[in-house]
Amino acid sequence: MKQFVYLFLFFSLAVQTITGQRLSERMIKSAATEAYPGGLKDLMNFLKIPNIGSEPDQVGRNLNWCENKFTSLGFRTEVIETSSAPLLFAEKRVSPKKKTVLFYLQIDGQPVDASEWEQDDPFIPVIKEKGSDGHWKTVDWDGKGIPNPEWRLFGRSASDSKGPAMAFITAVQYFHEHRHQPEFNIKVVMDFQEELGSPSLPQAVTDNRDLFDADMVLIMDGTRHISNWPTLCYGARGIATARIRVFGPSTSLHSGQYGNYAPNPVFEAARLISSMKDEEGRVLIRGFYDGISLSEKDKKALGFLPENEDSLRLRLGIHKRDAIGDNYQESMQYPSLNVRGLQSGWVGKEVRTIIPDVVDVEIDMRLVPETPGERMIQLLRDHMEREGYYMVDDTPSPEERAQYSKLASLDYRLGSLPFRTEMDSETGHYLNKALSRVFGEKVVNMRTTGGSQPIAPFIKTLDIPAVSVRIPNPDNNIHAPNENLRLGNFLEGIITCLAILNEPLK
Amino acid sequence: MKQFVYLFLFFSLAVQTITGQRLSERMIKSAATEAYPGGLKDLMNFLKIPNIGSEPDQVGRNLNWCENKFTSLGFRTEVIETSSAPLLFAEKRVSPKKKTVLFYLQIDGQPVDASEWEQDDPFIPVIKEKGSDGHWKTVDWDGKGIPNPEWRLFGRSASDSKGPAMAFITAVQYFHEHRHQPEFNIKVVMDFQEELGSPSLPQAVTDNRDLFDADMVLIMDGTRHISNWPTLCYGARGIATARIRVFGPSTSLHSGQYGNYAPNPVFEAARLISSMKDEEGRVLIRGFYDGISLSEKDKKALGFLPENEDSLRLRLGIHKRDAIGDNYQESMQYPSLNVRGLQSGWVGKEVRTIIPDVVDVEIDMRLVPETPGERMIQLLRDHMEREGYYMVDDTPSPEERAQYSKLASLDYRLGSLPFRTEMDSETGHYLNKALSRVFGEKVVNMRTTGGSQPIAPFIKTLDIPAVSVRIPNPDNNIHAPNENLRLGNFLEGIITCLAILNEPLK
Repeated sequence: MKQFVYLFLFFSLAVQTITGQRLSERMIKSAATEAYPGGLKDLMNFLKIPNIGSEPDQVGRNLNWCENKFTSLGFRTEVIETSSAPLLFAEKRVSPKKKTVLFYLQIDGQPVDASEWEQDDPFIPVIKEKGSDGHWKTVDWDGKGIPNPEWRLFGRSASDSKGPAMAFITAVQYFHEHRHQPEFNIKVVMDFQEELGSPSLPQAVTDNRDLFDADMVLIMDGTRHISNWPTLCYGARGIATARIRVFGPSTSLHSGQYGNYAPNPVFEAARLISSMKDEEGRVLIRGFYDGISLSEKDKKALGFLPENEDSLRLRLGIHKRDAIGDNYQESMQYPSLNVRGLQSGWVGKEVRTIIPDVVDVEIDMRLVPETPGERMIQLLRDHMEREGYYMVDDTPSPEERAQYSKLASLDYRLGSLPFRTEMDSETGHYLNKALSRVFGEKVVNMRTTGGSQPIAPFIKTLDIPAVSVRIPNPDNNIHAPNENLRLGNFLEGIITCLAILNEPLK
Repeated sequence: MKQFVYLFLFFSLAVQTITGQRLSERMIKSAATEAYPGGLKDLMNFLKIPNIGSEPDQVGRNLNWCENKFTSLGFRTEVIETSSAPLLFAEKRVSPKKKTVLFYLQIDGQPVDASEWEQDDPFIPVIKEKGSDGHWKTVDWDGKGIPNPEWRLFGRSASDSKGPAMAFITAVQYFHEHRHQPEFNIKVVMDFQEELGSPSLPQAVTDNRDLFDADMVLIMDGTRHISNWPTLCYGARGIATARIRVFGPSTSLHSGQYGNYAPNPVFEAARLISSMKDEEGRVLIRGFYDGISLSEKDKKALGFLPENEDSLRLRLGIHKRDAIGDNYQESMQYPSLNVRGLQSGWVGKEVRTIIPDVVDVEIDMRLVPETPGERMIQLLRDHMEREGYYMVDDTPSPEERAQYSKLASLDYRLGSLPFRTEMDSETGHYLNKALSRVFGEKVVNMRTTGGSQPIAPFIKTLDIPAVSVRIPNPDNNIHAPNENLRLGNFLEGIITCLAILNEPLK
């Protein structure tokens, strides 16, 4: 990557663009470099609009921003009302003879705990560079020069996924400003509740079949392969979440008065959690991996990707990996069971000497097409019953408390469905052609990625092949404090989108 | 109990008090009833001063209140500065020929989480009565009539321990206003950081031996025996606390990207917690119960107390008790291990789909004289090392992360020491005489209570027998939301203190 980034910093050639004429590799890279500082400024302004999907006011402000932007780029826009937050649709028709690509943009971000961030406000993005001491230091970019591609932009949604959305918008804007025509009709759908699992997307797709109809869906979301090469991903795991509440005494009790007498539910919950996985990280819930088999061909393709797991483990700060599959890529072909949150009583400054009354265990399960969410939740419930739990719907009654020593409730939600598009397909070939034109051999094709994408409705309802085009650096802290986007990745994201807009689709 | 409470609601006899003349049982009860409404109003005002021991401003306001109160009752007061919050000392000498009793009052309370309380503010006390539907409803007491003893006062420190302190103050005030002379010289020490483990009390006692010197220490703190009979308690468990942090990946990770690859520390922590206790609640840490043996005589005395464990379990909402000792009282003669708080990632509305980076496990261990805190903490640490943990002092280095799969830190604090005063002693006989005069047979003598009291310094440094005089109802939710004091207990607390002030001490 570095080679050509530094190379075209020296380009002074003014790029000549003519409507309908295709751009060469060199012209694409030069165009991207030209558009990059402006795109970055736009992105920084966009990030300043907080974007928690559960906040209607924030959804509204982001939707307005997107509507204005796409209108200014010559798109027709349409707000699609749903039972939760609206979606925004935008369309630019080039020619009825051309095919159509639907781009999916995720505009909302994960909630933030500002106290955990190394900047004042996760919604005031900051450019930083890594000092020789390994710490990130704020850079005072003048807004004019070409920003160093090794700098990073820190802020909520920098990489997930306003950054990728803005790479696409910057490319579209370049075409628009230079009156250059894309090689296909463009449709765009913007989702403001992806992090909530896109609750209304499936119904909206069903209700708007014709509007969303296209020859291909490109999802501008997700993180690149750990090699940080441009990445195409043909499948994503789905997700189901569950909250288990393990019940102890009916109220929290003084640990002096009742310690040694009233059982503490933390020990019960700990035994339950322990029963779910072995020490190697393999799930012990009966039937959890049923139906999955990787062929030798699949395993070979997965093992082919350029991965250095020693450096990955070092980067993650782990001694050994969970023993699922033979390598990172294989592990993503299986469903996972994760405790994403755990709480009982109070810790730190708030600590108090009590026997807690409940333990909350927040679970997420990543799903593959072979393991639908309903079945997996049922397996979890069956497991708990086998472990001796009496399952209640709500807080147990005094009678239930008197009768059963193990009491728990389980609430769940089914999120995005898993999906897979064939890699060896017209869509796959087309995208590889576009990307290899600018990146050569260094394009990663991934069978399945670990994270979820609410894309299954397009595939299931409209029968359109879908692929995610991945831009952000893998060490981007998504969903966590200090989320960031490497600026070189943003620049390459613009190149990627220009290359696709520029590739004839037959 | 109910019999005589209701009985003296009908007393209309004006109590005649004459300096130096002792009160009869009937006069004590009548005096208490007379003083009760005013004492309750005083208590409600006192509770309105927030009293978190870590807040110097709150400590100061409570100290001023106490200083004014005791000065108004003819006491000499003295602020004892320490390296943390000050203590307040108050003294009233009756005669150099008389013996001296030191009363210990706890003025601070546990932190509050107001959202968990069924009232607007835990520091605005509310009187409630139980409706026929079992729910507590606010009572609008006019401040004049005799409050129903079945009503309860809800608020932080109502029972732990401003309520008991105020029962004592009300009794002293009655003696003062009626110019009636106590049967001994009175010393009072007020602690504003008991819930923080009274960090400066031991040094203050050592530095002020003469000031604190007395023939007996009475601790006005702790909850009554579960029979809710007037209770004398001769020993208390001590406490040591520890925070274990189990380390996972160096930052929290996206559970989609890394679920099945990066081990989740919650499973490791769950196995560690599970390893500490068996399913019956017995601690499995090697050596944990060493040195404890209950004689047949001890077991008989403990089994003698009027306890209905079926109804206790029903009240606590538990199916079975932990299998330590043969009954509730026996279980308190052993050290306990409790997980008082547990946290990893986020739960509820804040939940996010990550693999957490750390798990915090807050532990408290209740101690008996045979199991000193230093040794117990070392046993815990040894246990973790036997479980395969590499112990770090701080966040592990990248090298440590690469080398060890189980990483944890352990911080600890030694709190109150355990103590026991002989039940069969002059002190025991004196207190039983005073209390049986007003309560007859229904006085409970407990060998050890479960909670800690920072009283060991008095016993160890000054060699004074110490007993805690217990007033609040056992179902008072101390240390938890909706802490409350049954008003009948407050009234009986005043009777108790009057009876003691009235009992000649030879």
